[in-house]
Amino acid sequence: MSTPASDSEAVAAANAALYEALERGDLDAVAERWLDEDISVVHPGWPVISGRGEVMRSYALIMANTEYIQFFLTDVEVSVAGDTALVTCTENILSGGPAEADGSTGPLVGGLVVATNLFRRTAEGAWKLWSHHGSPVLVEREEGEDGGMGEENEGPGNGEGEGGGLTEIG
Amino acid sequence: MSTPASDSEAVAAANAALYEALERGDLDAVAERWLDEDISVVHPGWPVISGRGEVMRSYALIMANTEYIQFFLTDVEVSVAGDTALVTCTENILSGGPAEADGSTGPLVGGLVVATNLFRRTAEGAWKLWSHHGSPVLVEREEGEDGGMGEENEGPGNGEGEGGGLTEIG
Repeated sequence: MSTPASDSEAVAAANAALYEALERGDLDAVAERWLDEDISVVHPGWPVISGRGEVMRSYALIMANTEYIQFFLTDVEVSVAGDTALVTCTENILSGGPAEADGSTGPLVGGLVVATNLFRRTAEGAWKLWSHHGSPVLVEREEGEDGGMGEENEGPGNGEGEGGGLTEIG
Repeated sequence: MSTPASDSEAVAAANAALYEALERGDLDAVAERWLDEDISVVHPGWPVISGRGEVMRSYALIMANTEYIQFFLTDVEVSVAGDTALVTCTENILSGGPAEADGSTGPLVGGLVVATNLFRRTAEGAWKLWSHHGSPVLVEREEGEDGGMGEENEGPGNGEGEGGGLTEIG
């Protein structure tokens, strides 16, 4: 593997680096993964947040309220077109909130989030984030249907009353 | 207004055309708005669906279960970079399911969805969808904070038990 990484591999590495920075709670490293302008982010269940200042503030807020977080990425798909790349992936999240008042650790929460991550190649050749959109998975994928949806889906946004895709596990 | 529309205007028009096709329940017109390959979609609360066949099947399923649907788009932001364009918008949705067994109309549902829509310019100069990601808004935007989030947000995907962002209004 001494050949230069392909575009797809470079994009996948940039994608992984975002999540590693989030796991470390390293806001500077997260900021380093993003383009300088015209960026936007949607965190699961949140409205759109636009502009570099607001995007970084949203990450700072999440970090302030997250004791730790781990991402296991699955279903990572990379599509490159010129200097733009689209990544979709499933974030299998294990996270914990701040410690309780009595000093015990906060609850562990496991969550399933799907993400669409958009990258652009900079003049320096680095792949940087232009947009991230994450959302909770509220409906089940039907077994053996290869992505087909079950009968229970009656239209867009029909997750009413089904909860936010998170299961408390500890 | 006899000057040619700018890229941003052309992208905004392509974005509006997607929703108009959905409102008409015109699957062929929806298919016409998308690129031929490497496409992906996330409907609110759903996992990622990849590939043209599966994406169109998902729209067919939604249309089969939606008597009518209307989209009022707000917060439309367009960012163009070369032959790629990123649109974020809020979909204020009013939809109705199939008629009840007794012949009366199904319930009206109002929903708030945020969308990230990614377009590429084809060789023919048309802007076509590469990716659509829609997700329910589960948390409130804090008044006067210009996109800042309230104290209740404790991390990504914390929408547990908050419902799917839909309110039955009729």
